[in-house]
Amino acid sequence: MAYTLGVEAGVGSVPILEAMGIRVVEVAPGRAIADLPPEPNVNHFGVTYAGSLYSVAEMLGGVLALATFDFDGELAGFVPLVKESTIRFRRPALGVVRASASLSDDEVARVRRDALSTGKGEFVLEATLTDAGGEVVATTVGTYQVRRFG
Amino acid sequence: MAYTLGVEAGVGSVPILEAMGIRVVEVAPGRAIADLPPEPNVNHFGVTYAGSLYSVAEMLGGVLALATFDFDGELAGFVPLVKESTIRFRRPALGVVRASASLSDDEVARVRRDALSTGKGEFVLEATLTDAGGEVVATTVGTYQVRRFG
Repeated sequence: MAYTLGVEAGVGSVPILEAMGIRVVEVAPGRAIADLPPEPNVNHFGVTYAGSLYSVAEMLGGVLALATFDFDGELAGFVPLVKESTIRFRRPALGVVRASASLSDDEVARVRRDALSTGKGEFVLEATLTDAGGEVVATTVGTYQVRRFG
Repeated sequence: MAYTLGVEAGVGSVPILEAMGIRVVEVAPGRAIADLPPEPNVNHFGVTYAGSLYSVAEMLGGVLALATFDFDGELAGFVPLVKESTIRFRRPALGVVRASASLSDDEVARVRRDALSTGKGEFVLEATLTDAGGEVVATTVGTYQVRRFG
């Protein structure tokens, strides 16, 4: 069984995400964006720590799933899980970092169909992390599941 | 250029790692172990958040590098960097999670040789995350570099 993100996979449900200062700035079906401030995520060089960059990108999967799938209705009893993720660091991250990810309508429809028919819908979500100048500082690829729980 | 871990890549140099309660329990040339407590890293199900699991594993690369390579001597001016990492979640993480990683003497010697001769020594570090019962909750594979800086 995979790691459980939790039904309320937003910032408020995990104290350490709140401590990072992560702020969800946009969330809609198939789309999520969050900001990560420098403090308290920087090392003494003023560069944002790898684990905080990973976190702001990873949590988009849960946030997006909650806004995209009907966990109070047809997918009641399902939860979003993360199975695996990879992060690639491109350049030092300075200042506020914005993470964004989206899932196409076709993918959303397929995941929903798979979840309803098999109890498990898997999807791959790519997130891009950019600095205030729009430069890509890191990219992630995560494998998530919407899965019947318990 | 890759993300900079920082010369003092230990817990104390990054406030958010300290906020996670990460504790380095063993560090020696080629070897590092750290513990991650549940609070404040759990979601409301009591399961440790993915980003905290990632962080305790990732930071071993910096801690290990600092204990393994002579950044005050022959590798003065070099820093450890992380280029990329992958985490795979095996089961929900409950309680204190221990992350451990090691690098063989041969690998250490090769990285040192490469760094001295080319200005860059790259290594792949696998970390294992276990719960108090010794069950593997996650594994990571990170690509790091010891690199001449600036």
